[in-house]
Amino acid sequence: MIIRILFTAFILTATLSVTSAQSVSDKLQKNRDYTGATAHKDSYKAIYMIDVKDPYVINKTLRNIGNALNDPRLKGKLTIELVAFSDGVAAFLKNSPYESQLKALIEKGVIVAQCANTLKEKHMSRDQIFDFVGLVPSGNGELILRQAEGWAVIKP
Amino acid sequence: MIIRILFTAFILTATLSVTSAQSVSDKLQKNRDYTGATAHKDSYKAIYMIDVKDPYVINKTLRNIGNALNDPRLKGKLTIELVAFSDGVAAFLKNSPYESQLKALIEKGVIVAQCANTLKEKHMSRDQIFDFVGLVPSGNGELILRQAEGWAVIKP
Amino acid sequence: MIIRILFTAFILTATLSVTSAQSVSDKLQKNRDYTGATAHKDSYKAIYMIDVKDPYVINKTLRNIGNALNDPRLKGKLTIELVAFSDGVAAFLKNSPYESQLKALIEKGVIVAQCANTLKEKHMSRDQIFDFVGLVPSGNGELILRQAEGWAVIKP
Repeated sequence: MIIRILFTAFILTATLSVTSAQSVSDKLQKNRDYTGATAHKDSYKAIYMIDVKDPYVINKTLRNIGNALNDPRLKGKLTIELVAFSDGVAAFLKNSPYESQLKALIEKGVIVAQCANTLKEKHMSRDQIFDFVGLVPSGNGELILRQAEGWAVIKP
Repeated sequence: MIIRILFTAFILTATLSVTSAQSVSDKLQKNRDYTGATAHKDSYKAIYMIDVKDPYVINKTLRNIGNALNDPRLKGKLTIELVAFSDGVAAFLKNSPYESQLKALIEKGVIVAQCANTLKEKHMSRDQIFDFVGLVPSGNGELILRQAEGWAVIKP
Repeated sequence: MIIRILFTAFILTATLSVTSAQSVSDKLQKNRDYTGATAHKDSYKAIYMIDVKDPYVINKTLRNIGNALNDPRLKGKLTIELVAFSDGVAAFLKNSPYESQLKALIEKGVIVAQCANTLKEKHMSRDQIFDFVGLVPSGNGELILRQAEGWAVIKP
């Protein structure tokens, strides 16, 4: 009798373990099958910020914007703005290596803007940045206004 | 008479100063008493990004997700997705030390996904990352789509 | 006849090139004229995070908040919260150099709060941070709750 109970308990425990392992495996498999969110809207908007002078970050940001524009889910539906402030002004300096990439983004419809407040704080003039760059009162204000309009705020 | 006017002016000034100091102190005290936003909704959603290979940042991100899930205000109400792109793919490489933490997050319902575009840019195959990781067309597209659905976008 | 065709083709090509160049130039000029988003709402809200101890980042964050508050588009309309977590607690330590700046922000209405979870993880007591700082259950939870309420989430 005792043996039977122990045996039953063993079987039950083993069954539960298998079920649990199965359930774990199911969750991992389900996650592997994940293919991303679906685009249900007609238009999407995102504002990217650059606030450091690190070329690694600046290049990553420019590449990120290109990738977002090319995402098959967003293709033709996406408006992007790029705003630089603090040391991120480095991306727009006339001697910086990003001119052609920035121009190409503007040709694709991306808004490219510099924080006017940063220029003031750094005692710089608009002449020191690329002629084709727009000016916003403050980069932070721009992020806040855009987020309030439903834009995604992304810091690469 | 002049002395009386001066005396009154002195008393008035002193009173104003005290009132002002009191007001300052009130604001500081009120701030000290702040205990955080209140959860009024039934469900909350957040997408975390990893776009660097720095173990400090990767560990911080995994810890952050755990902390958000355990926040008493959000307990049982929170859906989280973690997406890696750019050099953040390091978190999902088969020889990385994050396997058990990532599996534990998936068991808790967190979606864990890699940017397919990054794999392409880095000439990597899906076999190089953990089998249980999902794939999204682009990490940046995923951030933008999720934000448009009301998810918080968090970069640790 | 052949010469006439070639000549016409040449003129057509030249015209197209000019038109294209003109169009390019128009887009760049239009971008240069960009002056930023417009504030249509009566109130705006943003939550800033500090999750590193780097003085460069902490100082940038405090400066950013000031700049946002002073943006002519947001002046008098903006509510800001600053939350520190992970190594960002450094900004609030009693021996840190940010006391006067933080107090000035609180006087301007900014909410300044520390993640309680971080204190626990780091085995720290509330006594080690400035008396005037509030406490939230978790910094990450705070970001998620605020974003769900429509606040912009900004990481400088």
